[in-house]
Amino acid sequence: MNDRRDMRQLLEALAGGEIDVEAVLERLDSHPHLNIDHDRERRCGFPEVVFGEGKELDELSAAVEAIALRSGRALATRVDAAAGEKLGRSLEGAHWHPRSRCLVIEREERERRGDVAIVCAGTSDLPVAEEALITADIAGSKAELIPDIGVAGLHRLMAVEERLNEARVVVVVAGMEGALPSVVAGRVSVPVIAVPTSVGYGAAFGGITALLAMLNSCAPGVSVVNIDNGFGAGLVASRINLNGKEE
Amino acid sequence: MNDRRDMRQLLEALAGGEIDVEAVLERLDSHPHLNIDHDRERRCGFPEVVFGEGKELDELSAAVEAIALRSGRALATRVDAAAGEKLGRSLEGAHWHPRSRCLVIEREERERRGDVAIVCAGTSDLPVAEEALITADIAGSKAELIPDIGVAGLHRLMAVEERLNEARVVVVVAGMEGALPSVVAGRVSVPVIAVPTSVGYGAAFGGITALLAMLNSCAPGVSVVNIDNGFGAGLVASRINLNGKEE
Amino acid sequence: MNDRRDMRQLLEALAGGEIDVEAVLERLDSHPHLNIDHDRERRCGFPEVVFGEGKELDELSAAVEAIALRSGRALATRVDAAAGEKLGRSLEGAHWHPRSRCLVIEREERERRGDVAIVCAGTSDLPVAEEALITADIAGSKAELIPDIGVAGLHRLMAVEERLNEARVVVVVAGMEGALPSVVAGRVSVPVIAVPTSVGYGAAFGGITALLAMLNSCAPGVSVVNIDNGFGAGLVASRINLNGKEE
Amino acid sequence: MNDRRDMRQLLEALAGGEIDVEAVLERLDSHPHLNIDHDRERRCGFPEVVFGEGKELDELSAAVEAIALRSGRALATRVDAAAGEKLGRSLEGAHWHPRSRCLVIEREERERRGDVAIVCAGTSDLPVAEEALITADIAGSKAELIPDIGVAGLHRLMAVEERLNEARVVVVVAGMEGALPSVVAGRVSVPVIAVPTSVGYGAAFGGITALLAMLNSCAPGVSVVNIDNGFGAGLVASRINLNGKEE
Amino acid sequence: MNDRRDMRQLLEALAGGEIDVEAVLERLDSHPHLNIDHDRERRCGFPEVVFGEGKELDELSAAVEAIALRSGRALATRVDAAAGEKLGRSLEGAHWHPRSRCLVIEREERERRGDVAIVCAGTSDLPVAEEALITADIAGSKAELIPDIGVAGLHRLMAVEERLNEARVVVVVAGMEGALPSVVAGRVSVPVIAVPTSVGYGAAFGGITALLAMLNSCAPGVSVVNIDNGFGAGLVASRINLNGKEE
Amino acid sequence: MNDRRDMRQLLEALAGGEIDVEAVLERLDSHPHLNIDHDRERRCGFPEVVFGEGKELDELSAAVEAIALRSGRALATRVDAAAGEKLGRSLEGAHWHPRSRCLVIEREERERRGDVAIVCAGTSDLPVAEEALITADIAGSKAELIPDIGVAGLHRLMAVEERLNEARVVVVVAGMEGALPSVVAGRVSVPVIAVPTSVGYGAAFGGITALLAMLNSCAPGVSVVNIDNGFGAGLVASRINLNGKEE
Amino acid sequence: MNDRRDMRQLLEALAGGEIDVEAVLERLDSHPHLNIDHDRERRCGFPEVVFGEGKELDELSAAVEAIALRSGRALATRVDAAAGEKLGRSLEGAHWHPRSRCLVIEREERERRGDVAIVCAGTSDLPVAEEALITADIAGSKAELIPDIGVAGLHRLMAVEERLNEARVVVVVAGMEGALPSVVAGRVSVPVIAVPTSVGYGAAFGGITALLAMLNSCAPGVSVVNIDNGFGAGLVASRINLNGKEE
Amino acid sequence: MNDRRDMRQLLEALAGGEIDVEAVLERLDSHPHLNIDHDRERRCGFPEVVFGEGKELDELSAAVEAIALRSGRALATRVDAAAGEKLGRSLEGAHWHPRSRCLVIEREERERRGDVAIVCAGTSDLPVAEEALITADIAGSKAELIPDIGVAGLHRLMAVEERLNEARVVVVVAGMEGALPSVVAGRVSVPVIAVPTSVGYGAAFGGITALLAMLNSCAPGVSVVNIDNGFGAGLVASRINLNGKEE
Repeated sequence: MNDRRDMRQLLEALAGGEIDVEAVLERLDSHPHLNIDHDRERRCGFPEVVFGEGKELDELSAAVEAIALRSGRALATRVDAAAGEKLGRSLEGAHWHPRSRCLVIEREERERRGDVAIVCAGTSDLPVAEEALITADIAGSKAELIPDIGVAGLHRLMAVEERLNEARVVVVVAGMEGALPSVVAGRVSVPVIAVPTSVGYGAAFGGITALLAMLNSCAPGVSVVNIDNGFGAGLVASRINLNGKEE
Repeated sequence: MNDRRDMRQLLEALAGGEIDVEAVLERLDSHPHLNIDHDRERRCGFPEVVFGEGKELDELSAAVEAIALRSGRALATRVDAAAGEKLGRSLEGAHWHPRSRCLVIEREERERRGDVAIVCAGTSDLPVAEEALITADIAGSKAELIPDIGVAGLHRLMAVEERLNEARVVVVVAGMEGALPSVVAGRVSVPVIAVPTSVGYGAAFGGITALLAMLNSCAPGVSVVNIDNGFGAGLVASRINLNGKEE
Repeated sequence: MNDRRDMRQLLEALAGGEIDVEAVLERLDSHPHLNIDHDRERRCGFPEVVFGEGKELDELSAAVEAIALRSGRALATRVDAAAGEKLGRSLEGAHWHPRSRCLVIEREERERRGDVAIVCAGTSDLPVAEEALITADIAGSKAELIPDIGVAGLHRLMAVEERLNEARVVVVVAGMEGALPSVVAGRVSVPVIAVPTSVGYGAAFGGITALLAMLNSCAPGVSVVNIDNGFGAGLVASRINLNGKEE
Repeated sequence: MNDRRDMRQLLEALAGGEIDVEAVLERLDSHPHLNIDHDRERRCGFPEVVFGEGKELDELSAAVEAIALRSGRALATRVDAAAGEKLGRSLEGAHWHPRSRCLVIEREERERRGDVAIVCAGTSDLPVAEEALITADIAGSKAELIPDIGVAGLHRLMAVEERLNEARVVVVVAGMEGALPSVVAGRVSVPVIAVPTSVGYGAAFGGITALLAMLNSCAPGVSVVNIDNGFGAGLVASRINLNGKEE
Repeated sequence: MNDRRDMRQLLEALAGGEIDVEAVLERLDSHPHLNIDHDRERRCGFPEVVFGEGKELDELSAAVEAIALRSGRALATRVDAAAGEKLGRSLEGAHWHPRSRCLVIEREERERRGDVAIVCAGTSDLPVAEEALITADIAGSKAELIPDIGVAGLHRLMAVEERLNEARVVVVVAGMEGALPSVVAGRVSVPVIAVPTSVGYGAAFGGITALLAMLNSCAPGVSVVNIDNGFGAGLVASRINLNGKEE
Repeated sequence: MNDRRDMRQLLEALAGGEIDVEAVLERLDSHPHLNIDHDRERRCGFPEVVFGEGKELDELSAAVEAIALRSGRALATRVDAAAGEKLGRSLEGAHWHPRSRCLVIEREERERRGDVAIVCAGTSDLPVAEEALITADIAGSKAELIPDIGVAGLHRLMAVEERLNEARVVVVVAGMEGALPSVVAGRVSVPVIAVPTSVGYGAAFGGITALLAMLNSCAPGVSVVNIDNGFGAGLVASRINLNGKEE
Repeated sequence: MNDRRDMRQLLEALAGGEIDVEAVLERLDSHPHLNIDHDRERRCGFPEVVFGEGKELDELSAAVEAIALRSGRALATRVDAAAGEKLGRSLEGAHWHPRSRCLVIEREERERRGDVAIVCAGTSDLPVAEEALITADIAGSKAELIPDIGVAGLHRLMAVEERLNEARVVVVVAGMEGALPSVVAGRVSVPVIAVPTSVGYGAAFGGITALLAMLNSCAPGVSVVNIDNGFGAGLVASRINLNGKEE
Repeated sequence: MNDRRDMRQLLEALAGGEIDVEAVLERLDSHPHLNIDHDRERRCGFPEVVFGEGKELDELSAAVEAIALRSGRALATRVDAAAGEKLGRSLEGAHWHPRSRCLVIEREERERRGDVAIVCAGTSDLPVAEEALITADIAGSKAELIPDIGVAGLHRLMAVEERLNEARVVVVVAGMEGALPSVVAGRVSVPVIAVPTSVGYGAAFGGITALLAMLNSCAPGVSVVNIDNGFGAGLVASRINLNGKEE
């Protein structure tokens, strides 16, 4: 399978019923550059997630297909728009989310359980917050997004405080000075996952300032993921949310 | 209460039964530099923790006493040895931990529940791991410390893998290249809290390298706290551990 | 005046009435390393302030004396304890503040006007907040310090909100994640001067995190001074406070 | 209001008199991603300012319109040229400033009071200086811009020194080594707000050098805002300028 | 030889047999901007390698041609696609590798000896790994690439452990947290050359995190090259591999 | 003179003899954003140099013209290609250098004196070296450029060592590890001006590595200018070269 | 074995023949904080090396003893002087090196083979160079140290050039601008391991400058270890040196 | 010569006339860790300067003595007080400068020529300025130090402006925001060597801010040396000063 044409033919053959899933799996697993960790779902509760950046279209396509054929679901993040739109149309059960650049495949219905609340500070933080939402959802958690809760207007936070305390875990997404997780964590008793975003300019340093602020939170109960890592936050939140429940 | 002599007299009076708790609370709350958040335990499940660094002995003493009188327990971190030893001896129910520089007060027996596992990469990481252990414990969680599990000898990790998967949350403490959380998170399905330590030299940059490595973990389910912040990790882990249980 | 003995003799002679002020001024101005900007008070409203760090005792002493003799007041910051205690005792009208390491000389009574409010996040921030307080005071402003108002317990801020809005300018002193200025600036309509402190550890980076957070405040009306620069904040606040008033 | 077509229709309907302001407000406030802080003007003296970067056109348009309908004025910064030109033409009372990328709406005449002087070091700093000018103006202050006053030619500064001392506050905008605020602050008695710009190359590090220099000013009375943050400087200056006056 | 036309004519004349190699060498060496180190191969075992970035097409072409004419082989790295494709077609014995942006010329058959194993963590690291592979190969080493061995799935590493121990040197290529070299070096007894890549986002800081992690490896036997420097790793590995053998 | 058309008309009128130089100067000096330091040449020996980056075409054109009319020469650096080509053709005595992006105007013949030698490490450093050459030349110095002298082939340096010692000052331009100035300074007795360039990748950090290396040179007699600042080096070198000579 | 007294008694008992090695090993392995990787020598060719920093004396002593009893040799690095002197006297076959802070135990004679050359730039780099020497030696390599070869005096390098080319690997230790590895690597055909040291001040940044310079070496064949990591360099060099030989 | 006692005996023997210079030279040159570049003075005009930091007393003593015996003069910088005082008393013609930590040996009278002016911003910068003064002096230049010329009081600079223009080169020493070189370079036509100092706190970052500001000077004719590198500045200035004169 040296080029993209091969990939397309393979998937068309599967779609057309000319070959079966086992044959496709065999071909996909023989892709010279791929070495999917198919045991991941058993060990960690969720299959390997494909990091889209820097991947050729055929590698991306082979990877998500190989995972979806085994698990019934797959997630690729940081997929560029051209690839995302193409695969969103061509792969079975696939959905492309342009704002968060996530490609989701879901081929079996799966119940969502628990309660993950995702708060973001401004509308510019939405792409990251949406990535967290999509990840928590495909990982099996009920999740809700509450946007535009900045620290400069505390009444907006207070209006949703009770709602946040009902959740099993709260994800807080913020750029600039990244103060929101400190304020939230001082008001709730559930774990808070903080996600710094690259929103801001100048001394925001592409999210470093928000990251540092969150790591130094004076409020207890905050842990932090990488800048713009909505995916990581969504997965951690889902693990916490489903913790102690039969998965 | 202008100086340390006043503080000592006050506490001796209480110890001697000359005055009652209410009177002491009134005096402590009138300390000109303190403004304890006594409502914290109700909102967040655990009373305010005292950050020992830079505090004068009388401020430290007044703060933990004011909290312990109301909550029956108190925790102060980053207490210097002189103050720690003195208060560990003089305050009721207090215990001083020299390696982790924690001062703990516990005046009422409290059940420990759940299961928090704390892993550290080397013996030099023990002070931070112990801070996490003590914090999780005083916060009400059953917690266990498993030391010296470095990535250069994977068999040591594999020997405890099953144990880790039984916990409700795993805290991983490591300095230098900070690779252990990635390796652990690839083997378990529970949430992993990573704690970078300042162990190392040169380009370890006092823990920055470990911090960055943990934030960039390619394994899912990792969130991170500040460098050497065993306290923060212990509290987050405890919140996750007690999540969904009646506290 | 080659050494410290000369300096002491000179000042003793002045104290003893053996020589007059003009003679002392002449001698002080001929100090080989000093070149005091005696015109500063006329141009900027406050005489040159002496930066104590790295100065020999005789240089420090000659500098503050030369200023005080002309202006009736003088301020030296970052004075080490040995020098501070010695000069606090030996110079006329001098007062040494050990917590903030300020040496203040005031020889003429001077009215304080206006209203500067200084808020700090924790008791560990007190040395910096006190430096701001002392500076604003000696510069001619009425100033008040309100300690221990952290963002993890918002009710403490709300309790003083009205008071802050009465001031003509608010100075906010905080370390760690430095979130307090954002929250304060969203509640008041007066200018906010933010002072990051070096309180914290690990990724607090000696105050860099708080500094960056304050520079990126999403709330309007915040400007920032250097880390631990209580002096600078106090002087800026005093300029704003006395603005438009006859000085 | 799912897409931009809806937004255009809504505003055309208002322009055409088909619906009234209340109806539009209701629709705008129901925008799924917006949560405008309409109380900001009461608390802080100026309505919420819209941060244009990363916002979709419909979000931007809905936000400024919602604010302008209530306050009679609105400001959006960091608006990209395409959006700025479009909204500058289509919204009532809007004006688009391409150099500083500000979109200003003013629908009621409002007196300008006081005196804000804005100085910039070179012509390359003009976009930032203009942003400060526009912000101070719309916030109700009389403001004047004096360009191209570099420290390498001090006579240019001395020529305007008297003018600067007449103002109630001076904003100083500079890139490269950022030395101008120090020199200015040594010549005036009014507060100085320093704005570092990203002008320069190499070790200018996109404005970090100028920012650091300004934070370390040896001259008293300087406080600093974020790199390229003309908006922040304009607003702080306006708060100082209008301080103690009936607003 | 002022422009590219001259270069083309010169090489066409050589190709057409109109002039001989000596004449071309003379012309190439007289290029005003080039000063090839033709003695390098004798001193260091491999001719000078051309750094393609920022070079004009005629400089690039003259440089590789001058080297290939003398050594029978030449390597240029970081060649942009336009130049690479053009020279890959026009120069004798040239081959253009688009993924790794290497231009290789080999005009004499040369035996490959020894055993260099190259491991990479993910498919996004392939461009760098391929650069290492190509470099080791042209430098005379037998080399093999084993892709997609991430630390989150240790069984993939264990499956190739024996293979790695057979090599004389192992090159490990990884981005993000850069943990793979530590894990590999703990399992083998041969030297490990670690290559950090710029794969990742946010706090990966374009490869700095992986670089720092590798420099701080707790496992012995690891040395490190620059970020994305597959070339350097390939050459070091080849020197080690061919060490003690007649070259 | 609101737009570029005015500028062109003005200069055409001067070229056509319709107006005289005084009238043009008056118009140019009234440009709202320019405040040229026409006294610079008297004070510093060379007129103000125009920093091209971020300037509008009309500002750039007005600035160089205003300087050239008074001094007979002018220099603008970091001019983008479009502006450079246009002004190189339209302004009298102008010459555009595309590699170094310098626009030079020289209208009076001026003798070149002394001896400045400029060495660069690789052909990728040529744009910066050429900027130094052009600057030293227009400032009145005889200058020569010796390219491609890398430290990996010391014989190339030794071949020109004698030549370098004849110069009155040596400028050394290098990227990557920036080692060349140390090696050169250990071989000559004249001052060495080191210029780091942004040539390199990964941990070259856009020239920071070379800059730091040069600042830490263990060889005496090295001083350093900003990254890629060929202009600064050329001017410093020229000042040193012409030092003690009648200018 | 709770305290140091136990440790001393245990070792005295062994020294006195009261107990045997197996009994000691059992006791040492039951140390609560130690988990020695006794399989390391089999996998990697050299037993685990003890990182002395931050270890209590009893942990240090138990660790090296446990290793030495099994392997006949042991190495501890970064041991503080008090512990080093004490253990150097009390443990069998131990030798304490104060300059490099290495504690070496060798109880069986072992042949040294091959040829490792270690060069350092200045006498201030000697502690690190000595650590490399000691490590390569105890790991089984013949090694020689050639001090004080700075780039500012190239003739010193040339005098040893031939010697360096005879070695199988060269370790180059340098601080400040770290230029020596580039110059050496351009003169030899064997692998070069570069070790940056923290020697220098100001912009040497504790060795960061030297580290960066070495990573960006324009000469081929250089790989780098952590700042001041003589141990790492010695071990890598020894692996390369013994490569392909029966160990 | 294994220890310090040997060194003392050797020098006492020379002082006592028991052995001659050649014998001492031979002994000194055989010091195992020293490899003095005795040819440096011929090549570079000044003998090798000894970097005192991290050197043992015997190495320091042997090094300066070996140089002084050949050149009649020697300089060691960054010598700690204990060593400096001892050697200042014991070595012939030696003088110890405690403020700048310089050890100077001068055994032959040597004329000082030319004119180097050294300006510093504050009295805290004196140690660095003095190091520059001493270096320029021992290198053969007439040099003068003018202290305490800060940018916050420009009249102090203007008072010495004429004096500075008479010099052949000006060294400007400043910490904090490092603005003084820009202002000076805009007033003179001679070369300016800028020396950043570590004076300041917080965001002064130990001199980084001053260093960066000086590298970005908007005034022409400035080149920069390392933080606190008075020695380097003095030597560069002396080379420039003596340039074109018979040395």
